[in-house]
Amino acid sequence: MISFTCDYTQGAHPLILERLSQTNFIQEPGYGEDSFCESARARIREAVGLPGADVFFLVGGTQTNSTVIDAMLRGYEGVIAVQTGHIAVHESGAVEFSGHKVITLPAHSGKMCADELQAYLEAFHSDGSKDHMVYPGMVYISYPTEYGTIYSKKEIIDIHNICKKYNIPLFVDGARLGYGLACDKADITLPELAALCEAFYIGGTKVGALCGEAVVFPGGAPAHFFTTVKQHGALLAKGRLLGVQFDVLFTDGLYMKISRNAIDMAMKLKDLFLAKGYEFFIDSPTNQQFPILDKARIEELRDKVAFEIWEPLPDGRFVTRFATSWATTPEYIDTLSNLL
Amino acid sequence: MISFTCDYTQGAHPLILERLSQTNFIQEPGYGEDSFCESARARIREAVGLPGADVFFLVGGTQTNSTVIDAMLRGYEGVIAVQTGHIAVHESGAVEFSGHKVITLPAHSGKMCADELQAYLEAFHSDGSKDHMVYPGMVYISYPTEYGTIYSKKEIIDIHNICKKYNIPLFVDGARLGYGLACDKADITLPELAALCEAFYIGGTKVGALCGEAVVFPGGAPAHFFTTVKQHGALLAKGRLLGVQFDVLFTDGLYMKISRNAIDMAMKLKDLFLAKGYEFFIDSPTNQQFPILDKARIEELRDKVAFEIWEPLPDGRFVTRFATSWATTPEYIDTLSNLL
Amino acid sequence: MISFTCDYTQGAHPLILERLSQTNFIQEPGYGEDSFCESARARIREAVGLPGADVFFLVGGTQTNSTVIDAMLRGYEGVIAVQTGHIAVHESGAVEFSGHKVITLPAHSGKMCADELQAYLEAFHSDGSKDHMVYPGMVYISYPTEYGTIYSKKEIIDIHNICKKYNIPLFVDGARLGYGLACDKADITLPELAALCEAFYIGGTKVGALCGEAVVFPGGAPAHFFTTVKQHGALLAKGRLLGVQFDVLFTDGLYMKISRNAIDMAMKLKDLFLAKGYEFFIDSPTNQQFPILDKARIEELRDKVAFEIWEPLPDGRFVTRFATSWATTPEYIDTLSNLL
Amino acid sequence: MISFTCDYTQGAHPLILERLSQTNFIQEPGYGEDSFCESARARIREAVGLPGADVFFLVGGTQTNSTVIDAMLRGYEGVIAVQTGHIAVHESGAVEFSGHKVITLPAHSGKMCADELQAYLEAFHSDGSKDHMVYPGMVYISYPTEYGTIYSKKEIIDIHNICKKYNIPLFVDGARLGYGLACDKADITLPELAALCEAFYIGGTKVGALCGEAVVFPGGAPAHFFTTVKQHGALLAKGRLLGVQFDVLFTDGLYMKISRNAIDMAMKLKDLFLAKGYEFFIDSPTNQQFPILDKARIEELRDKVAFEIWEPLPDGRFVTRFATSWATTPEYIDTLSNLL
Repeated sequence: MISFTCDYTQGAHPLILERLSQTNFIQEPGYGEDSFCESARARIREAVGLPGADVFFLVGGTQTNSTVIDAMLRGYEGVIAVQTGHIAVHESGAVEFSGHKVITLPAHSGKMCADELQAYLEAFHSDGSKDHMVYPGMVYISYPTEYGTIYSKKEIIDIHNICKKYNIPLFVDGARLGYGLACDKADITLPELAALCEAFYIGGTKVGALCGEAVVFPGGAPAHFFTTVKQHGALLAKGRLLGVQFDVLFTDGLYMKISRNAIDMAMKLKDLFLAKGYEFFIDSPTNQQFPILDKARIEELRDKVAFEIWEPLPDGRFVTRFATSWATTPEYIDTLSNLL
Repeated sequence: MISFTCDYTQGAHPLILERLSQTNFIQEPGYGEDSFCESARARIREAVGLPGADVFFLVGGTQTNSTVIDAMLRGYEGVIAVQTGHIAVHESGAVEFSGHKVITLPAHSGKMCADELQAYLEAFHSDGSKDHMVYPGMVYISYPTEYGTIYSKKEIIDIHNICKKYNIPLFVDGARLGYGLACDKADITLPELAALCEAFYIGGTKVGALCGEAVVFPGGAPAHFFTTVKQHGALLAKGRLLGVQFDVLFTDGLYMKISRNAIDMAMKLKDLFLAKGYEFFIDSPTNQQFPILDKARIEELRDKVAFEIWEPLPDGRFVTRFATSWATTPEYIDTLSNLL
Repeated sequence: MISFTCDYTQGAHPLILERLSQTNFIQEPGYGEDSFCESARARIREAVGLPGADVFFLVGGTQTNSTVIDAMLRGYEGVIAVQTGHIAVHESGAVEFSGHKVITLPAHSGKMCADELQAYLEAFHSDGSKDHMVYPGMVYISYPTEYGTIYSKKEIIDIHNICKKYNIPLFVDGARLGYGLACDKADITLPELAALCEAFYIGGTKVGALCGEAVVFPGGAPAHFFTTVKQHGALLAKGRLLGVQFDVLFTDGLYMKISRNAIDMAMKLKDLFLAKGYEFFIDSPTNQQFPILDKARIEELRDKVAFEIWEPLPDGRFVTRFATSWATTPEYIDTLSNLL
Repeated sequence: MISFTCDYTQGAHPLILERLSQTNFIQEPGYGEDSFCESARARIREAVGLPGADVFFLVGGTQTNSTVIDAMLRGYEGVIAVQTGHIAVHESGAVEFSGHKVITLPAHSGKMCADELQAYLEAFHSDGSKDHMVYPGMVYISYPTEYGTIYSKKEIIDIHNICKKYNIPLFVDGARLGYGLACDKADITLPELAALCEAFYIGGTKVGALCGEAVVFPGGAPAHFFTTVKQHGALLAKGRLLGVQFDVLFTDGLYMKISRNAIDMAMKLKDLFLAKGYEFFIDSPTNQQFPILDKARIEELRDKVAFEIWEPLPDGRFVTRFATSWATTPEYIDTLSNLL
C-alpha cells in the first residue's frame, strides 16, 4: 500500500544518511557547538543572504513555535495567528503552556488578511479596556499555510508593514518552507522573506530530514536564546545530528531541489484528480492537495492508498488530503492513477 | 586529539545507522505509531519484565524529565531531588518553567539518603504551615547519578518504601541507565528497578543512539500523556527515528553490551590514573571518572586530550571529568596512557 | 456628576462597614480560619442548600476564575467559554498565564448555546487529531453574562447535561450572581443553580462588598485547594475581611435584597430610555443596560453623567453601558431623567 | 485569651475604618484610578523622596512578590533569595508557578550575606555550564527578615553594589517594612532604602491595614505592569479600598507611629521574657520575638495565650514566636506578664 497521508512517512534523504555514517565517529562537542552545525549555520546564512543572522537548530515544529514565541514575547503579550494556524489548533496548547494567549483572526484559505490584522490592532489600541486584555506582541503566519496555500510577496510586505507600524515582530512558521518557495506560484525568494520578518524557520522534518528545524533570526536572537531552548527541553545533546542534516540540505541546493520534487509530484497528482473529474476544496500550489471524495470512493481506495480525511462537507462528501514529499516518486503517482 | 569530555561526542552505534538506511523508504505513520516503535516497545516491555507497561519515546533528557514530572504532578506539588540532581542544576529551570518547584535534599556523592528523605517528609507533614508550602509530590533520583555513583538495590528499596508510605511516585532518571546497570557494583536488574518505581527512562542519547529516551511507566502512563508530550514540544513527527534506534538497542542485548564496553574502558582509565598516582574525587564505578589534576598537568594535557574541568578544590587542584562511552575503544585509553 | 459606569463605583453596604468596626479588635486567626469566615460559610451552605459544600473566600473575580479553573483542570486541558466571556477577553490572559487555553464558542447575546457546545464536543471527540489538540476539560459560563443577559433554568440544565455526558465540570462565574437571581426573568434559585454545577462563585465585589468572591464547590473542592489559592497569590492574610462581609451579606437575606435594588433601579432606567425613544442594543433584564446613543447625545451628556462607551455601531451610533448597583438610589435615576 | 501568634490578628487602624465610612458613597473609578489612590501615591512618593517613582497597590504579600518578580524577570531568569526567604518557603511555590526558579543562598539569622552573594554570582558567571543553568536575574531580600532581623544600611549598600556590578535589580520585600524602619537598631530611612533598590513594597496588611501592599518602583515600573497585575489576578476592582488605607497610613506619619507601637510592645515583651530568665533563639529588634520554651511551659500557657511553635530544638525545647503589632496594647503585655 502506498501512502499520501503526510510528508513525513519516510526517513531522510540518502545523502543525509550517508553523511551521518561518514561522520559518525568524529568526536565533536555537544549542544550545537560542533563543526557540522557551524558549517550548516554558515550555509544557511549565505542562503538567506544575511551574514549576521543568528541560526539555531531545534528538533521539531511545535517545539520551535513555542520556544521562539515564548522567547520573543513578554509575559503580558500574546501572539496573533489565524484560526486555522498550527499553533491555534494542532499543538496541544503548547503556546498557552508557556503562558501566552493565541489571539485568532479569521483564516482565508489558511491565510491572514492584512486588512483584518490592521483593523484588529487599530481596534485594540483604541479600546479603553486594552490594559485588561492580552497585548498583541507578535504576528505568526505559516508559509505555506496548513492548507497548502502561500502568501504573495505583496501580502507578506503588507503584513510586515503593519507589524513595523505597531512595532511587533513577524514570525514565519516554515515547517514546509521549501514546498512554498519551490512552487510555481511563489513570487518571493528566501532572502526576500528573511528581510521581511524578525524570525522564521526552515523546516527539515517535512523536507528531507529525519528531524530538525533551522530557526533564523535575521536581526539577531533574543538574549540568552540558547538557555531558553534548553529550558523548553528543545536542546539536542548531539546537536551534530541537526548540523549534519542541514549541512547536507544546504549543500548544492539540495533543499530546494528536493522541495521541487514534491511540487512536481503534487502537480501530477492534481492533474490526475482533475482529469478524472474530481473537485478540489482549495486551490493549493504546494505539496498538500485537497480533493473532494465521496464516501463510496473513500471506501474503495482505503485498502490500496492511505490519505487523510480532512473534514466532512455539508453535502456528505469529504475533503481529503493527499501530501507528496521530497521522497515521492512518479511510481506513487502511477499507482494512484490506476486506482482512481 | 581525543576527547573524554562527555558520553555524547560521537554519533550512533553502526547497527542503528545501518537499520535507519535499510528502513529509510518504508512508509510509516508519524508520532510513534509506526511499526518500529511498536516493535521497540514490545522489546522494552520484555526487557523490563512488564507486559503491561506503557512505553513512550522522547527526544532528550531535560525534555523527558520536565514532561514526565509535569505530567505526574498536580499544580500545587513539587518534586524532591538532591541538590546536585540534573533537574536542580543543569536544566535551565525546565521544571520550574512548567510551574513546579524542585525541592532539594543534600547530596551524598550525588545520591539521596533515604533517612533524610524520610525526615524531610515527616517534618513536612507535621509542619503547621504545610498548606502554605509546596507539597512534595514525587521523588526524583538518577541512576547512575550525575557523579557516576549508583544506588544499591537496598537503597532504592528504602526510598521506594518511603514513597509508598507517603503515597508519592518515584521517578528514576536513567539518562545513563545502561552504564549503571552494567557496572560491577550494580546489584539490581532492569526488571527489579522497574518494579520499584512509577516511572523511569532508559537513556538512548548517551548510550549509543543519535537521540532518544524511552520512558517506561510500569503501572501505566498518566492520562493523555501523549497530549502532554505534544504540549511540551516533545513529540517527534518521525517517531520512527526513535523506534528504529530502540528496536536495535534492545535486539540481542545490544544496549547492555555497549554499556559494558563503556564500563570496561572506564575501569581501564581508572586503573591508568591510579597506577600513575592520581587521586580521585569520588569512587565512581560507572563511565564517568573524576581524577584530580593540578593546574600544570591540565595545561600540559589540554592540547592533546579533551576533558571537563568539574570544580576547583580548596588546595588549588581541580576535579576533572573523563567520560567513556559505548564508542570508546582501547586505542583511546592507550593514547591517554601515553600522555599521562 | 453621577456615574453609571460600573457596579463598583462605591464602597460597601453600611452594615458591612458597621460590622467591620464592631469586630475590629477581636483577635482571630488568619487565612480564612477565623470565626467570621466560619459563620459566613455556614450561612452560604444554608443559602445554597448544600450542607456538605466547600466554600472558600477569594478577593476578586479574575483571580477567582483563574484559580478555580487551574485547580480543576489537568495540564493538557482547556476551558470552554463563549467569545465574549470575561476569561476570554478582559482578564489579561490570566487563564493562559496558568497554562490553559480558553477554547471559544460563539456568543449569543453573551450566552453559550447548548447545541453548539454539544456539536463542538462531538466534533472534538470524533476528530482523528484530537490527541494533538487541547482537551476540553471544563465549561465556563457567566450568570448573568457580560451583556447582562441570563440563562433560563432549561438552558443551564441542557449545558449541565452535556457536561455530564462528557464528564467535564461546569463552572459558573457569578461575579454579578445576585443581579441575575434577583431579576424578574430569572427562573432559577440559588440551590437549583448549585445543584447543576461543580463550582460557582457568589460575587461580592459588585454586590455590596468592598471586595470578595465566595467560591462554592457543591460536591467538594479539588484536593489541596487552599494551597492552590495561596500559590495563585489569592489567599488573604486577614481572611476576616471577607468573612465579615459575606457573613453580613448572607444575614437576613441582605444579598438578595440589595441585588433587587439594583434591578429596580435598572428597570426604572430602562423605562426612562424607552420612554424617551432610545433603542437598546440588547434586552437585558439585569443591572447592566445598553442603550444606543448617537455621538451628539454622548457629547452632551458627558459632563453630567458618567457611563461607558461599549462599542461603535456600523451606523455611527454607539452602544453604551449604564450600570446600576446595590447603591443606586432613585435620585440617580431622577437626575438622569432630567438630563435625557 | 490573648494572642501573639502573628501581626494580622486584628482588623485595621480605626482611622482607616473611619475614612472608609466617610468616603463610602463617593463614586470613583475602579482599578486604582480613583482619587484616593492618587492621593496615596502622592503621599508615598513624598515619603520615599522620589517624585518620579511609580506606585501600585496590590492586595497581599505573596501576590505582590510573585507579580513583581515575574514582571521584572525574563523567562530564563530566576530570583536569588536566602533559604528562609518567604518566597522560598511559605508561598506555596508562587514564584515557580510563574515559571521562575528561586535560587537559594544560606541564611544568617534570616539575612543574605553580601560576600556569599558575590561568590555565587562570580561562580555562576565563570561556570562553563552557565548557559544550561537558571540565570540569576534579581536579588530578593526581606526587611525585616522572616526572623525579625534587619540589615544595616551598610549591608544593603553592599548587596546593592553587587547587584549594580552584575546589572540585576534588587527587590525588597517590605511586608513588615514599618517594623523594620521603626526599630531602635535601624540605621536606614525610607528614602535611603528606596534609593538602593529597583523595587520594594510597603506592607499594609501587617501594619494597620485590612489588606494591601504599596509597591514602589523608584526608577519606574516594568512596561505594562498594570496588565501584568491584572493577569496575575492581583488587580482590585475597588482599588479605592487600598487607596483610602494607604492615604490614611501616610497622613501625619501614622504608618511609622503605629509601627513604633509594635516595637515598643515587642521590647517590653522581650524584657519580660529576659527578666524571667528565658533564652531567645535570635536577637530580634523588631516585632517578632523568638523565646525558647520547654514543653511543660508551652502546655501551661496554651490555654491562656496564643503564640506560634516555630521549630523544635535538639535539646527538646522549642523556639516559639510572639508577634506584636500596631494594635498591641500594654494590657496584652501585662496579661502575659502575669502568665509567665
